Amino acid sequence: MKKILVLGAGLSASSMIKYLLDHAEQNNWKVIVADQSKELAEKKIAGHSRGEALYFDVFDEALRRELISSVHVVISMLPARFHGLVAEQCVESGIHMITASYISDQIKALDEQAREKGVLLLNEMGVDPGIDHMSAMQVIDRIRNSGGQIKEFESSTGGLVAPEHDNNPWNYKFTWNPRNVVIAGQGVSRFLHNGQVKYIPYHKLFSRTETVDILDYGRFEIYPNRDSLKYKDIYKLDGVKTLFRGTIRRPGYSKAWDVFVQLGMTDDSFVIADSEHMTYREFANSFLEYRKNMPLEKKMVEYIHASEDSDIMQKITWTGIFERKAIGLKRASPAQILQNLIESKWKLGSEERDMIIMQHKFVYEFDDTEKEIKSTMVVKGDSQVHTAMSITVGIPVAIAAKLLLQDRIKVRGVQLPVVKDVYEPVMEELADYGIRFIEEERLVGEAVES
Amino acid sequence: MKKILVLGAGLSASSMIKYLLDHAEQNNWKVIVADQSKELAEKKIAGHSRGEALYFDVFDEALRRELISSVHVVISMLPARFHGLVAEQCVESGIHMITASYISDQIKALDEQAREKGVLLLNEMGVDPGIDHMSAMQVIDRIRNSGGQIKEFESSTGGLVAPEHDNNPWNYKFTWNPRNVVIAGQGVSRFLHNGQVKYIPYHKLFSRTETVDILDYGRFEIYPNRDSLKYKDIYKLDGVKTLFRGTIRRPGYSKAWDVFVQLGMTDDSFVIADSEHMTYREFANSFLEYRKNMPLEKKMVEYIHASEDSDIMQKITWTGIFERKAIGLKRASPAQILQNLIESKWKLGSEERDMIIMQHKFVYEFDDTEKEIKSTMVVKGDSQVHTAMSITVGIPVAIAAKLLLQDRIKVRGVQLPVVKDVYEPVMEELADYGIRFIEEERLVGEAVES
Repeated sequence: MKKILVLGAGLSASSMIKYLLDHAEQNNWKVIVADQSKELAEKKIAGHSRGEALYFDVFDEALRRELISSVHVVISMLPARFHGLVAEQCVESGIHMITASYISDQIKALDEQAREKGVLLLNEMGVDPGIDHMSAMQVIDRIRNSGGQIKEFESSTGGLVAPEHDNNPWNYKFTWNPRNVVIAGQGVSRFLHNGQVKYIPYHKLFSRTETVDILDYGRFEIYPNRDSLKYKDIYKLDGVKTLFRGTIRRPGYSKAWDVFVQLGMTDDSFVIADSEHMTYREFANSFLEYRKNMPLEKKMVEYIHASEDSDIMQKITWTGIFERKAIGLKRASPAQILQNLIESKWKLGSEERDMIIMQHKFVYEFDDTEKEIKSTMVVKGDSQVHTAMSITVGIPVAIAAKLLLQDRIKVRGVQLPVVKDVYEPVMEELADYGIRFIEEERLVGEAVES
Repeated sequence: MKKILVLGAGLSASSMIKYLLDHAEQNNWKVIVADQSKELAEKKIAGHSRGEALYFDVFDEALRRELISSVHVVISMLPARFHGLVAEQCVESGIHMITASYISDQIKALDEQAREKGVLLLNEMGVDPGIDHMSAMQVIDRIRNSGGQIKEFESSTGGLVAPEHDNNPWNYKFTWNPRNVVIAGQGVSRFLHNGQVKYIPYHKLFSRTETVDILDYGRFEIYPNRDSLKYKDIYKLDGVKTLFRGTIRRPGYSKAWDVFVQLGMTDDSFVIADSEHMTYREFANSFLEYRKNMPLEKKMVEYIHASEDSDIMQKITWTGIFERKAIGLKRASPAQILQNLIESKWKLGSEERDMIIMQHKFVYEFDDTEKEIKSTMVVKGDSQVHTAMSITVGIPVAIAAKLLLQDRIKVRGVQLPVVKDVYEPVMEELADYGIRFIEEERLVGEAVES
């Protein structure tokens, strides 16, 4: 019997644990779910004969060693900062590890040791990062193998609300960690456009959007997603002229969100004086100039150069930012206050479904012509537990664990799913779970020597 | 004979050392100037019989102890981060210390120990901070003692070029550390306006200016200078409704500088890819959108919504940012590249003079009427060595050292020059050096209960 240890039984682990339990009998697995709340772990196991729920404390070194040493593969769904501790123990004990998080320097440094021990530390095995790598590399390798040369690569992803439950003026709801949405894009974003590196400071990010139509889901907008340049190395896109990663929202979202950014309300670097006893209205007013006898709404209308009945003012007003409601948060940053305000507003209801959209665009040269492939995935949630986010993050991780235990993944050391050995079988099985890409191809024109 | 130890013989120490040497004979002082370049220290002493030049290395603990223990007062003109080391030795050896820098937490923590030893650690004794405290407190105390209640306090300072040498489109030249000018205002600025705390994010700072006329020096503009709120405690301004600190520039400076801020060119948090082999033109282009066949200047004109022959485009063009000149800096941040570009352009020529302007505005209630006092200082440099900056930073420090050695300053512990015991005699003597404030008073109107 092979043992799988899942560390962390939070929302994002639901679909993954279900997959493992569903496949446990035929593969002769035992699925051990360990969490700081044993109760939560038990809930995820739901009395399955192949499952076991345990208490886990990542800071308990002896427990870490004991648990990890006794299994065949570890799946860490802990907060990303703890993966390093788990990975070190995995290497020491000679046990494989899989995570859905971005590879860290701490984990990178374990590569040689892991290879020596015959251990695989497989990272970025979720949706973004994860499915993005696999689905892109599948097309990139195919183009290359047929002799094509990739000139442009653009890839965008968005966690959104399903159209049938899209009923607020922002056309957006939280489907993942709200904090990450509030502080999204802080720092500089960079990408490659027609051979030139472009830098966008945070305060310009949400005004640099592009509009696209995606399949028959209608219109969306895309804003740049941090450092696109690193994908040149990861995907080995040497001759690429344009390299862009983006975040997908419904049209109008970015322009309205930009109001908060411009005012300084997404800043997480300082504390608002006496935030506890302030109202949201006072909070908003502290970012706008003092104007004698001018109501806040009027100042805002002037600030954003829009009319009172404009779409943008409707979005802003809908958040409740003008309300005389107490904030009640001690020593809070602007970002924390804003998150507190919108968290209940953008909450996905229990009967509502989320939707994840991912779209890649490849432009490549082949035989003196230029062609474009668009490859698009749309996944909707099944239930409040098995959301699109939980499915797309968890199923790839679970499939990778299965393939590894079946000895069908041979690579070792610190890896991303950009190797065919990993992405090919995973992508094939993902289709069974409704995670599939639709391709649209068109001729762009005669290739021009540049 | 009393011994004064000056640590650091850089540009900012010139006027201070001259004052000390000029007063050494009559006061029976020995002035020891110690620097990591003994040659520089010797140059400042210039063979004066009362002076002595020594080599100094702040990291040499034994040397630090030996030098400090052998004198009566230490003036530290070292970079601010080293003051803590010096202060600790001063307290241990029972020696007074004076600096022109902002008080640090490290120094604050020495207060009790210093009092026990009868030691004065006098900080913020330069111009800004320094003369700002003293000149403000002089008026604040006077208003209070006459029964007035201060309602508004605004205080602004600018290091500028003297009008007779003001010959570039920015009406600005570097008179102090260029790096501090390039990254000025980063983070959030906050102030109090009519009872409301206002926050301004960095990307809005240079568009939130006010215009003022100062004496007969013409028109200036003022932008907010970081955290004004802390002056409420420092000056004990309990009932104040408006509290604002600002930086003074000539009109048009902020609007043009804001172009660099908006583009992201003042960012010091990341490195520009291949900065060494780039031109300034390519650097500028990396912050503007790709537009087929559109020259950079045209893109900039569109970006700033101004015409090609506008004042703002003239300022931008004059910096050389559009030139095909190599940057030649390895792994440089945008702020470093921008500083490199303008450092030679904004250099004060050897025959040119700088000018420091400081203006306080007090609005106070007295006898049911509201009055306003404006108190203004303008100081011009004497020479390339004795700049306005060197004079206004150095002379207050030197006077404080004299008063201390003459036993006319009685306070001990960690102090700022906000106590009458310090500011009164210093301000009186500063007038002999042309550092004086001109007051304009006017009636604002009947006071209204708020």
